[in-house]
Amino acid sequence: MQKLRIVSSNHMRIKLTVEYDGMQFYGWQKQNDRISVQETVEHAISRLFNGAESVELYGAGRTDTGVHATGQVAHFDIPNGELAEKWRANIWKLHIGINSYLIDSGAVITSAEIAPDGFHARASAIMRHYEYIILNRNIKSVIHANRMWHIVRRLDDVAMNEAAKLFIGTHNLNAFRSAHCSAANPVRTISSVEVRRDGDRVIIQVAARSFLHNQVRIMVGTLVQIGLGIKRVDHIQQLLESMDRTAAGPTAPPYGLYLTKVEY
Amino acid sequence: MQKLRIVSSNHMRIKLTVEYDGMQFYGWQKQNDRISVQETVEHAISRLFNGAESVELYGAGRTDTGVHATGQVAHFDIPNGELAEKWRANIWKLHIGINSYLIDSGAVITSAEIAPDGFHARASAIMRHYEYIILNRNIKSVIHANRMWHIVRRLDDVAMNEAAKLFIGTHNLNAFRSAHCSAANPVRTISSVEVRRDGDRVIIQVAARSFLHNQVRIMVGTLVQIGLGIKRVDHIQQLLESMDRTAAGPTAPPYGLYLTKVEY
Repeated sequence: MQKLRIVSSNHMRIKLTVEYDGMQFYGWQKQNDRISVQETVEHAISRLFNGAESVELYGAGRTDTGVHATGQVAHFDIPNGELAEKWRANIWKLHIGINSYLIDSGAVITSAEIAPDGFHARASAIMRHYEYIILNRNIKSVIHANRMWHIVRRLDDVAMNEAAKLFIGTHNLNAFRSAHCSAANPVRTISSVEVRRDGDRVIIQVAARSFLHNQVRIMVGTLVQIGLGIKRVDHIQQLLESMDRTAAGPTAPPYGLYLTKVEY
Repeated sequence: MQKLRIVSSNHMRIKLTVEYDGMQFYGWQKQNDRISVQETVEHAISRLFNGAESVELYGAGRTDTGVHATGQVAHFDIPNGELAEKWRANIWKLHIGINSYLIDSGAVITSAEIAPDGFHARASAIMRHYEYIILNRNIKSVIHANRMWHIVRRLDDVAMNEAAKLFIGTHNLNAFRSAHCSAANPVRTISSVEVRRDGDRVIIQVAARSFLHNQVRIMVGTLVQIGLGIKRVDHIQQLLESMDRTAAGPTAPPYGLYLTKVEY
């Protein structure tokens, strides 16, 4: 578990927006022996600082292996006052400097700025936005391989959207979390869910302050059962009441999921 | 050069639609020592026929190395009457059979059907549609690497669209073809061109019965000069009149270009 860290005021905190191809990492979070986004970006920052100081990066969302991000947010503290002075007037150089150590890594920093006072990428987030993309056609795509979940049978996106609306509000989401989810409290407030069709794609957007482990992917797996006619729209209501994970749909594959935006 | 071939009527001709990731091939056309889409698909079909007979595949457009297709069309003849009888009632099995030999190849057959009488993928085509995608933002994308041309400076898509309209009609397009273009006649009729912005993407769509070598990519390179303010809208008119390749813009990179549809 990451810990909140209080820093003295002469340290400068940097807010980053990070895009990554989830298939090139074993998730966001640092692990032994396996490559993570967190460690990859930390390493790039350390290299920019000539390896003199190690940095610790805090992310807004701990995406799993295979899950992509176009709008992950993270922060780190510039490790000493001297470096802070050097980079304060050169945030753009800092930004492209980090990216120069991320070439061919599968991750890229899309924005960098001095964080406002008291900012914490994880703790200060008030809304996280995820998008899930399904390719709904006969044949898989080679252009978009590992970017969408391929489902052959035609999905009823209108029924899926109707069912999706039942998620909005504050619920015990025990039926929609992984067995490995360590959150003590399974109650979450879902602010918006929308399912829409765009040609042969079905796109599911979900926003909430925070999520349980695998929550979006289990929501998607369950909505797909409704889109296929295996379950009816009111199945969502039953799951929210039963709180039974085994009655919910399968966990949708990670490579269709994108962390698109974090609001503060 | 491919030659038209007249086939006897007891042969069955199959029309395929092919999607491929252009970055995984040295173009459509078969070559010595380098992997092409044409050879890859021919090889998959031959394997389905137990290698007993080789097949020859004819494509609607000879896309270059790096150029993608979502709607390339090709045809081949089932090599003998016995095989034709076997597959006539099983076109769907033929389709998925070919795809089973294309797994991880970077190409996939998205549709297969018995071609109408006299059909020829190249000669019968009455319209070819290409799409070019530019990612117009500060930082490159890792999610869409090799799928779009990344341009940092803001493009004036309205000026580009205005300029694009000047291409519509029948023109000598000598200024817009590669030095290696072997076409005897550089006159072509462009049916439609459109430039539009979709968020941080600028999308250019062009349709014509036929194209010169590198034509779309040189048109895009030239429109980008107008979008950047390096050239004015009426520059297109001057190029069409001067017929001078050296005055046109650079050839846009291949990986932003998609052959999306062929009409018959």
